[in-house]
Amino acid sequence: MSAEPALVLTLRPATRADLPAVLALLADEERVVDPAAVTVTVAYEHAFTAIDEDPRNEMLVLVEDTDGQDGGGTVVGCLQATYIPGLGKGGAERALIEAVRIRADRRGGGLGRILMERAIARARARGCELVQLTSDKQREDAHRFYAGLGFIRSHDGFRFGL
Amino acid sequence: MSAEPALVLTLRPATRADLPAVLALLADEERVVDPAAVTVTVAYEHAFTAIDEDPRNEMLVLVEDTDGQDGGGTVVGCLQATYIPGLGKGGAERALIEAVRIRADRRGGGLGRILMERAIARARARGCELVQLTSDKQREDAHRFYAGLGFIRSHDGFRFGL
Repeated sequence: MSAEPALVLTLRPATRADLPAVLALLADEERVVDPAAVTVTVAYEHAFTAIDEDPRNEMLVLVEDTDGQDGGGTVVGCLQATYIPGLGKGGAERALIEAVRIRADRRGGGLGRILMERAIARARARGCELVQLTSDKQREDAHRFYAGLGFIRSHDGFRFGL
Repeated sequence: MSAEPALVLTLRPATRADLPAVLALLADEERVVDPAAVTVTVAYEHAFTAIDEDPRNEMLVLVEDTDGQDGGGTVVGCLQATYIPGLGKGGAERALIEAVRIRADRRGGGLGRILMERAIARARARGCELVQLTSDKQREDAHRFYAGLGFIRSHDGFRFGL
Protein backbone atom coordinates (compact mmCIF):
# COMPACT_ATOMS: atom_id res chain seq x y z
CA MET A 1 0.00 0.00 0.00
CA SER A 2 1.65 3.23 -1.18
CA ALA A 3 1.60 6.36 0.97
CA GLU A 4 -0.56 9.34 -0.01
CA PRO A 5 1.73 11.64 -2.06
CA ALA A 6 2.53 14.91 -0.25
CA LEU A 7 1.11 18.10 -1.74
CA VAL A 8 3.65 20.70 -2.79
CA LEU A 9 2.97 24.45 -3.09
CA THR A 10 4.77 26.24 -5.91
CA LEU A 11 4.77 29.92 -6.90
CA ARG A 12 5.44 30.25 -10.63
CA PRO A 13 4.52 32.48 -13.59
CA ALA A 14 1.13 31.54 -15.01
CA THR A 15 1.04 29.80 -18.38
CA ARG A 16 -1.72 30.29 -20.95
CA ALA A 17 -3.27 27.06 -19.63
CA ASP A 18 -3.69 28.73 -16.21
CA LEU A 19 -5.59 31.74 -17.62
CA PRO A 20 -9.14 30.43 -16.98
CA ALA A 21 -8.18 29.58 -13.38
CA VAL A 22 -6.67 33.06 -12.89
CA LEU A 23 -9.75 34.80 -14.34
CA ALA A 24 -11.92 32.62 -12.08
CA LEU A 25 -9.90 33.78 -9.06
CA LEU A 26 -10.23 37.43 -10.10
CA ALA A 27 -14.02 36.99 -10.46
CA ASP A 28 -14.20 35.13 -7.15
CA GLU A 29 -15.37 37.43 -4.38
CA GLU A 30 -17.17 35.24 -1.86
CA ARG A 31 -17.43 31.85 -3.49
CA VAL A 32 -15.41 29.67 -5.85
CA VAL A 33 -15.87 30.30 -9.58
CA ASP A 34 -15.41 27.25 -11.83
CA PRO A 35 -12.62 27.97 -14.35
CA ALA A 36 -14.57 25.91 -16.92
CA ALA A 37 -17.38 28.50 -16.68
CA VAL A 38 -15.08 31.46 -17.46
CA THR A 39 -15.16 33.06 -20.92
CA VAL A 40 -11.63 33.89 -22.06
CA THR A 41 -12.29 36.87 -24.34
CA VAL A 42 -9.85 38.11 -26.98
CA ALA A 43 -9.19 41.14 -24.73
CA TYR A 44 -8.13 38.84 -21.87
CA GLU A 45 -5.96 36.80 -24.28
CA HIS A 46 -4.21 39.98 -25.37
CA ALA A 47 -3.78 41.23 -21.81
CA PHE A 48 -2.35 37.90 -20.70
CA THR A 49 0.10 37.89 -23.62
CA ALA A 50 1.12 41.47 -22.77
CA ILE A 51 1.91 40.44 -19.17
CA ASP A 52 3.59 37.20 -20.24
CA GLU A 53 5.88 38.86 -22.79
CA ASP A 54 6.84 41.82 -20.60
CA PRO A 55 10.06 41.18 -18.63
CA ARG A 56 8.80 43.59 -15.94
CA ASN A 57 5.40 41.96 -15.42
CA GLU A 58 4.48 38.56 -14.02
CA MET A 59 1.14 36.93 -13.27
CA LEU A 60 2.23 34.55 -10.52
CA VAL A 61 0.13 31.56 -9.50
CA LEU A 62 0.31 29.55 -6.30
CA VAL A 63 -0.18 25.97 -7.40
CA GLU A 64 -0.82 22.87 -5.34
CA ASP A 65 0.29 19.59 -6.84
CA THR A 66 2.03 16.36 -6.05
CA ASP A 67 5.39 16.95 -7.67
CA GLY A 68 6.08 20.69 -7.74
CA GLN A 69 7.01 20.65 -11.43
CA ASP A 70 6.16 23.60 -13.65
CA GLY A 71 2.81 23.32 -15.42
CA GLY A 72 -0.19 21.41 -14.13
CA GLY A 73 -1.51 21.32 -10.56
CA THR A 74 -4.39 23.25 -9.01
CA VAL A 75 -4.25 27.06 -8.92
CA VAL A 76 -5.22 28.17 -5.40
CA GLY A 77 -3.94 31.77 -5.49
CA CYS A 78 -2.49 34.47 -7.70
CA LEU A 79 -1.02 37.95 -7.81
CA GLN A 80 0.46 40.23 -10.43
CA ALA A 81 3.93 41.70 -9.87
CA THR A 82 5.20 44.71 -11.83
CA TYR A 83 8.88 45.60 -11.47
CA ILE A 84 9.30 49.34 -11.94
CA PRO A 85 12.63 50.95 -12.80
CA GLY A 86 13.11 54.32 -11.12
CA LEU A 87 15.45 57.15 -10.24
CA GLY A 88 14.85 56.98 -6.46
CA LYS A 89 17.04 55.22 -3.90
CA GLY A 90 20.09 54.70 -6.08
CA GLY A 91 18.21 53.54 -9.15
CA ALA A 92 16.86 50.19 -7.91
CA GLU A 93 13.57 48.70 -9.11
CA ARG A 94 10.50 48.57 -6.88
CA ALA A 95 7.88 45.83 -7.05
CA LEU A 96 4.19 46.72 -7.28
CA ILE A 97 1.79 43.94 -6.32
CA GLU A 98 -1.81 43.87 -7.58
CA ALA A 99 -4.67 41.40 -7.95
CA VAL A 100 -3.88 39.30 -4.87
CA ARG A 101 -6.33 36.42 -4.56
CA ILE A 102 -6.70 33.14 -2.68
CA ARG A 103 -9.50 30.82 -3.79
CA ALA A 104 -12.58 31.38 -1.61
CA ASP A 105 -12.67 27.84 -0.19
CA ARG A 106 -8.98 27.92 0.77
CA ARG A 107 -8.83 31.17 2.73
CA GLY A 108 -7.85 31.33 6.39
CA GLY A 109 -5.29 28.51 6.18
CA GLY A 110 -2.11 30.51 5.67
CA LEU A 111 -1.94 30.31 1.86
CA GLY A 112 -2.09 34.10 1.55
CA ARG A 113 0.98 34.46 3.73
CA ILE A 114 2.86 31.86 1.68
CA LEU A 115 1.83 33.58 -1.58
CA MET A 116 2.99 37.01 -0.36
CA GLU A 117 6.20 35.82 1.33
CA ARG A 118 7.30 34.03 -1.83
CA ALA A 119 6.46 37.05 -3.99
CA ILE A 120 8.48 39.28 -1.62
CA ALA A 121 11.41 36.84 -1.77
CA ARG A 122 11.19 36.90 -5.57
CA ALA A 123 11.33 40.72 -5.59
CA ARG A 124 14.27 40.67 -3.18
CA ALA A 125 16.15 38.13 -5.33
CA ARG A 126 15.61 40.42 -8.32
CA GLY A 127 17.21 43.33 -6.47
CA CYS A 128 14.13 45.42 -5.73
CA GLU A 129 14.44 47.94 -2.90
CA LEU A 130 10.75 48.05 -2.04
CA VAL A 131 7.48 46.17 -2.42
CA GLN A 132 4.35 48.31 -2.59
CA LEU A 133 0.63 47.70 -2.95
CA THR A 134 -2.69 49.38 -2.31
CA SER A 135 -5.79 47.97 -0.67
CA ASP A 136 -9.33 49.34 -0.63
CA LYS A 137 -9.90 51.40 2.54
CA GLN A 138 -12.94 49.25 3.42
CA ARG A 139 -10.88 46.02 3.53
CA GLU A 140 -9.75 46.14 7.18
CA ASP A 141 -9.14 42.36 7.13
CA ALA A 142 -6.70 42.80 4.25
CA HIS A 143 -5.00 45.66 6.10
CA ARG A 144 -4.41 43.48 9.15
CA PHE A 145 -3.03 40.78 6.85
CA TYR A 146 -0.53 43.15 5.18
CA ALA A 147 0.48 44.71 8.50
CA GLY A 148 1.07 41.20 9.87
CA LEU A 149 3.47 40.57 7.00
CA GLY A 150 5.46 43.69 7.92
CA PHE A 151 3.98 46.20 5.48
CA ILE A 152 3.69 49.80 6.70
CA ARG A 153 0.46 51.68 5.90
CA SER A 154 2.25 54.93 5.07
CA HIS A 155 0.39 56.23 2.03
CA ASP A 156 -3.05 57.05 0.71
CA GLY A 157 -4.01 55.55 -2.65
CA PHE A 158 -5.79 57.72 -5.22
CA ARG A 159 -7.59 56.59 -8.37
CA PHE A 160 -8.95 58.45 -11.37
CA GLY A 161 -11.20 56.50 -13.77
CA LEU A 162 -10.81 57.26 -17.48
CA MET B 1 12.12 96.40 -31.17
CA SER B 2 10.96 92.76 -31.25
CA ALA B 3 8.29 91.48 -28.87
CA GLU B 4 9.28 89.19 -26.00
CA PRO B 5 8.79 85.60 -27.27
CA ALA B 6 5.92 83.75 -25.53
CA LEU B 7 6.86 80.83 -23.27
CA VAL B 8 5.42 77.46 -24.23
CA LEU B 9 4.89 74.55 -21.79
CA THR B 10 5.49 71.09 -23.21
CA LEU B 11 5.13 67.65 -21.59
CA ARG B 12 7.51 65.19 -23.26
CA PRO B 13 9.62 62.12 -22.41
CA ALA B 14 12.91 63.13 -20.81
CA THR B 15 16.07 62.72 -22.86
CA ARG B 16 19.43 61.79 -21.39
CA ALA B 17 20.30 65.52 -21.47
CA ASP B 18 17.41 66.16 -19.03
CA LEU B 19 18.65 63.61 -16.48
CA PRO B 20 20.57 66.07 -14.22
CA ALA B 21 17.52 68.36 -14.14
CA VAL B 22 15.24 65.43 -13.26
CA LEU B 23 17.57 64.22 -10.49
CA ALA B 24 17.72 67.81 -9.20
CA LEU B 25 13.89 67.89 -9.04
CA LEU B 26 13.78 64.56 -7.21
CA ALA B 27 16.34 65.85 -4.67
CA ASP B 28 14.47 69.17 -4.36
CA GLU B 29 12.30 69.17 -1.23
CA GLU B 30 12.06 72.80 -0.14
CA ARG B 31 14.49 74.68 -2.34
CA VAL B 32 15.82 74.52 -5.89
CA VAL B 33 18.75 72.18 -6.50
CA ASP B 34 21.14 73.22 -9.28
CA PRO B 35 21.28 70.47 -11.94
CA ALA B 36 24.96 71.31 -12.45
CA ALA B 37 25.59 70.25 -8.83
CA VAL B 38 23.99 66.80 -9.28
CA THR B 39 26.19 63.71 -9.59
CA VAL B 40 24.84 61.37 -12.25
CA THR B 41 26.04 58.00 -10.96
CA VAL B 42 26.31 54.87 -13.09
CA ALA B 43 23.29 53.48 -11.19
CA TYR B 44 21.20 56.50 -12.23
CA GLU B 45 22.43 56.16 -15.83
CA HIS B 46 21.32 52.54 -15.86
CA ALA B 47 17.96 53.34 -14.26
CA PHE B 48 17.32 56.12 -16.76
CA THR B 49 18.18 53.81 -19.67
CA ALA B 50 15.86 51.15 -18.24
CA ILE B 51 12.97 53.64 -18.12
CA ASP B 52 13.81 55.11 -21.53
CA GLU B 53 13.98 51.74 -23.30
CA ASP B 54 10.85 50.30 -21.68
CA PRO B 55 7.72 50.87 -23.80
CA ARG B 56 5.63 50.80 -20.59
CA ASN B 57 7.65 53.39 -18.66
CA GLU B 58 8.13 57.11 -19.28
CA MET B 59 9.93 59.80 -17.32
CA LEU B 60 7.93 62.82 -18.44
CA VAL B 61 9.25 66.37 -18.07
CA LEU B 62 7.29 69.60 -18.15
CA VAL B 63 9.50 71.99 -20.08
CA GLU B 64 9.23 75.72 -20.52
CA ASP B 65 10.75 77.18 -23.65
CA THR B 66 10.17 79.62 -26.45
CA ASP B 67 9.32 77.27 -29.27
CA GLY B 68 7.82 74.07 -27.84
CA GLN B 69 10.16 71.86 -29.87
CA ASP B 70 11.45 68.60 -28.42
CA GLY B 71 14.80 68.88 -26.64
CA GLY B 72 16.07 71.98 -24.89
CA GLY B 73 14.10 74.36 -22.67
CA THR B 74 13.95 74.54 -18.88
CA VAL B 75 12.65 71.55 -16.93
CA VAL B 76 10.16 72.85 -14.33
CA GLY B 77 8.41 69.58 -13.43
CA CYS B 78 8.46 65.82 -13.88
CA LEU B 79 6.67 62.57 -13.19
CA GLN B 80 7.14 58.93 -14.03
CA ALA B 81 4.32 57.03 -15.71
CA THR B 82 4.18 53.21 -15.77
CA TYR B 83 1.55 51.58 -17.99
CA ILE B 84 0.55 48.26 -16.48
CA PRO B 85 -1.17 45.52 -18.48
CA GLY B 86 -3.75 43.63 -16.44
CA LEU B 87 -6.61 41.15 -16.40
CA GLY B 88 -9.11 43.48 -14.69
CA LYS B 89 -11.78 45.56 -16.42
CA GLY B 90 -11.67 43.89 -19.82
CA GLY B 91 -7.91 43.72 -20.08
CA ALA B 92 -7.10 47.46 -20.37
CA GLU B 93 -3.85 48.98 -19.08
CA ARG B 94 -3.77 51.19 -16.01
CA ALA B 95 -1.34 54.07 -15.53
CA LEU B 96 0.65 54.36 -12.31
CA ILE B 97 2.12 57.80 -11.62
CA GLU B 98 5.14 58.27 -9.34
CA ALA B 99 7.79 60.88 -8.61
CA VAL B 100 5.61 63.95 -9.24
CA ARG B 101 7.63 67.13 -8.78
CA ILE B 102 7.40 70.84 -9.57
CA ARG B 103 10.55 72.92 -9.07
CA ALA B 104 10.44 74.56 -5.63
CA ASP B 105 10.48 78.15 -6.95
CA ARG B 106 7.64 77.48 -9.39
CA ARG B 107 5.06 75.92 -7.07
CA GLY B 108 1.64 77.45 -6.45
CA GLY B 109 1.22 78.80 -9.98
CA GLY B 110 -0.81 76.00 -11.55
CA LEU B 111 2.08 74.07 -13.14
CA GLY B 112 1.27 70.95 -11.10
CA ARG B 113 -2.27 70.90 -12.48
CA ILE B 114 -0.96 71.29 -16.05
CA LEU B 115 1.58 68.50 -15.48
CA MET B 116 -1.05 66.10 -14.12
CA GLU B 117 -3.79 66.97 -16.62
CA ARG B 118 -1.44 66.36 -19.54
CA ALA B 119 -0.23 63.08 -18.05
CA ILE B 120 -3.86 61.97 -17.56
CA ALA B 121 -4.66 62.93 -21.18
CA ARG B 122 -1.65 60.91 -22.32
CA ALA B 123 -2.86 57.84 -20.38
CA ARG B 124 -6.36 58.27 -21.83
CA ALA B 125 -5.00 58.56 -25.38
CA ARG B 126 -3.11 55.32 -24.81
CA GLY B 127 -6.32 53.54 -23.82
CA CYS B 128 -5.76 53.22 -20.07
CA GLU B 129 -8.86 52.66 -17.97
CA LEU B 130 -7.48 54.13 -14.76
CA VAL B 131 -4.77 56.41 -13.39
CA GLN B 132 -3.52 55.56 -9.92
CA LEU B 133 -0.95 56.99 -7.52
CA THR B 134 -0.08 57.01 -3.85
CA SER B 135 0.84 59.94 -1.65
CA ASP B 136 2.42 59.95 1.82
CA LYS B 137 -0.31 60.18 4.50
CA GLN B 138 1.38 63.26 5.98
CA ARG B 139 1.10 65.26 2.72
CA GLU B 140 -2.37 66.79 3.21
CA ASP B 141 -1.52 69.55 0.70
CA ALA B 142 -0.84 66.93 -1.96
CA HIS B 143 -4.08 65.14 -1.08
CA ARG B 144 -6.09 68.33 -1.62
CA PHE B 145 -4.30 68.79 -4.93
CA TYR B 146 -5.15 65.29 -6.19
CA ALA B 147 -8.74 65.52 -4.93
CA GLY B 148 -9.06 68.85 -6.79
CA LEU B 149 -8.03 67.08 -9.99
CA GLY B 150 -10.81 64.51 -9.52
CA PHE B 151 -8.86 61.68 -7.91
CA ILE B 152 -10.71 59.57 -5.32
CA ARG B 153 -8.84 58.65 -2.13
CA SER B 154 -10.21 55.10 -2.04
CA HIS B 155 -7.22 53.00 -1.00
CA ASP B 156 -4.51 52.69 1.60
CA GLY B 157 -0.95 52.36 0.34
CA PHE B 158 1.38 49.81 1.95
CA ARG B 159 5.17 49.57 1.63
CA PHE B 160 7.67 46.92 2.61
CA GLY B 161 11.37 47.85 2.43
CA LEU B 162 13.76 45.15 1.23
